[in-house]
Amino acid sequence: MNVFVIGIGLIGGSMAIDIKDKYKNAVIFGIDTNEIHLKTALRLKIVDHTAGLKDLSKADIVIVALPVDSTINVLTEVLSKIHDQAVVFDVGSTKQLICESLSEHPKRKNYVATHPIAGTEFSGPTSAIAGLFKNKTNILCEIKKTDSVILNKAKKMFRKLGMKLIYMDPVTHDKHIAYCSHLSHACSFMLGKTVIKKSKNEKGILDLAGSGFASTVRLAKSSPAMWTPIFMQNKENLIEALDEFIANLYNFRHILISGEDENLYNEMKNANRIKQILIDIDN
Amino acid sequence: MNVFVIGIGLIGGSMAIDIKDKYKNAVIFGIDTNEIHLKTALRLKIVDHTAGLKDLSKADIVIVALPVDSTINVLTEVLSKIHDQAVVFDVGSTKQLICESLSEHPKRKNYVATHPIAGTEFSGPTSAIAGLFKNKTNILCEIKKTDSVILNKAKKMFRKLGMKLIYMDPVTHDKHIAYCSHLSHACSFMLGKTVIKKSKNEKGILDLAGSGFASTVRLAKSSPAMWTPIFMQNKENLIEALDEFIANLYNFRHILISGEDENLYNEMKNANRIKQILIDIDN
Repeated sequence: MNVFVIGIGLIGGSMAIDIKDKYKNAVIFGIDTNEIHLKTALRLKIVDHTAGLKDLSKADIVIVALPVDSTINVLTEVLSKIHDQAVVFDVGSTKQLICESLSEHPKRKNYVATHPIAGTEFSGPTSAIAGLFKNKTNILCEIKKTDSVILNKAKKMFRKLGMKLIYMDPVTHDKHIAYCSHLSHACSFMLGKTVIKKSKNEKGILDLAGSGFASTVRLAKSSPAMWTPIFMQNKENLIEALDEFIANLYNFRHILISGEDENLYNEMKNANRIKQILIDIDN
Repeated sequence: MNVFVIGIGLIGGSMAIDIKDKYKNAVIFGIDTNEIHLKTALRLKIVDHTAGLKDLSKADIVIVALPVDSTINVLTEVLSKIHDQAVVFDVGSTKQLICESLSEHPKRKNYVATHPIAGTEFSGPTSAIAGLFKNKTNILCEIKKTDSVILNKAKKMFRKLGMKLIYMDPVTHDKHIAYCSHLSHACSFMLGKTVIKKSKNEKGILDLAGSGFASTVRLAKSSPAMWTPIFMQNKENLIEALDEFIANLYNFRHILISGEDENLYNEMKNANRIKQILIDIDN
C-alpha cells in the first residue's frame, strides 16, 4: 500500500507514523517543498522514501497536510494525477472553500474532505508524534460526493487510527470551528501580543506569569504560515465570533466599572459550565 | 510550631501539606467557615485540629488563604489576636488594598504581604496537592514594613517550600498581575461564555472542541467566589489591560476584513515570541 504524504509536518508526520504502525504493508512516500523537513522525516524514519508529484500515479492513499491555501491548488493537481481507486484527503481546518474548489473536478469522487481535531502548538516533522489521533474527533464533510468504496477505505483507516467520525456539511463545519477553534487561536495570539507589548515598557512584568497565563497563551506559539490562510478563508465566521467575544468583554468591563459584584459572580458562574464540556472533550 | 491556616482550600490546604512535610514539629490548625471543608481537611489529614479565631494567641504562623475581600477583615482581626513574634501572611492575588488597609495596624510588623504564583483551576480542600509551590515565584510586597526577624522566618519557610522570592511594591504588583493573570482569567471566562451561548442555538458546536479550545478556556473553571473580589479590587488595572486587549482584537479584525495576509502573518509572528517567555516560566 503506497501512502503519499504531502507536507511532512506535525499532522502529516504524525499520521504517517500511525499508518506505518497499523498497516505493516504501508510504504510511506514524503513530498515537501522544504528539503530540510524531508531529510529530517527520512532520518526519523517517518517516511520511507522521498517523492515528487510526478510519482502520484502509484499512490493508493494521498494525504495533503499543507496550509489551507496551498491545499486547494495541490489537491486539484493530485486528483488529476492519481489512479481511479486512490483515496485522497486533506486535513485542513477549513472546509467550505476547499470543497467548493473541487466540486466540479472529474475526480471529486476520490476525495474525502477531512478535518481531524488534533494537533499541538508545534510544527514541523520533529513535532510529529505517535498516537496523536487516538480518541480524537474527525469531521468528514460532503461524504455523498465521495465514491462509497473509497469513502469506506478512508473511514476504516481513520478508525484504525482511533478516531471518532462525525459528519457535517462544509458550511456548518466552518461556522462551528470558528467558535471552537479559530476564535481560541485569535484570542491567544492577541493576548500574547497585549502582554508582550506591555512588558516592553514595564520591565519584569513577565516574572509574574504563571501556569494560568501559560495555558491561555499556549496557542500563540502556533505557526503563522498555517494560521494566516485559515483565518483568511474563514474570516466571515471568525469576525462574527470575534464580535460576540468582544461584546462579552465589553459587558464584563461595564460590570466591573459599575461595581456589580453579583452580576460579575453570575457571569463567571455561568461560564463555569465549561467544566462539563471539558470533561466531555477529555473522555 | 503551631501553624494556623484560615481557609482550607486549594492554596491553604496545599501549603499545610508542604509545611507538615518540611517541618516535623509543625501542628496544623484549620479554621474555615465551611464545616464540610474543615471535616474534609481533617479526614485527609491536611490539618491536625480544627480551631477558631479565639485560639490565635497560640499561633506561631498564621496563613490567611481566603477570597481577597474577606482577607482584609480577617487579617485585621488576626493581627489583633496574635503574640508579638507570630508570622502572619496572606496569599491573595491583589496586594494594594490589603496593604493599605493594614498600614496603620499596630501589629503591621508581624505581617508579610505575600502572593505565591501557584494554583490550579480547582478549589476546596480535595484539590490541595503536595509540591504545588515548588519552583514557583512568590512575590513579597512592602517588606520594609515587616519586622526583620519575622520576615526572615517567613522567607526561610517559603524557600523550604521551593519558592523563588521576588520583591515588589503593591501598586506595581497589582498593575503587572492584571496583565499576567487577571486578564487571562477574564478572557477565559468570556471566551467560555461566547462559545456556551453559541452552542445553545447551534447544537453540536461543542463536538468540534479540541485541546486548543480546552487550553484557552481552562481558567473559566475557576471559582467565582474567589475571582469576584480579585477583579473588583483590581478593576482599574484590569480595565486598562482589557482595553488594550480589545484594541488588539479590533486591529486583528480590521486586518482580516482588509485581507492583509502579510500583516496578519506578522501579527502572529510577533506573538510567537511568547514561546521564549513560556520556556522561562516552565524552567
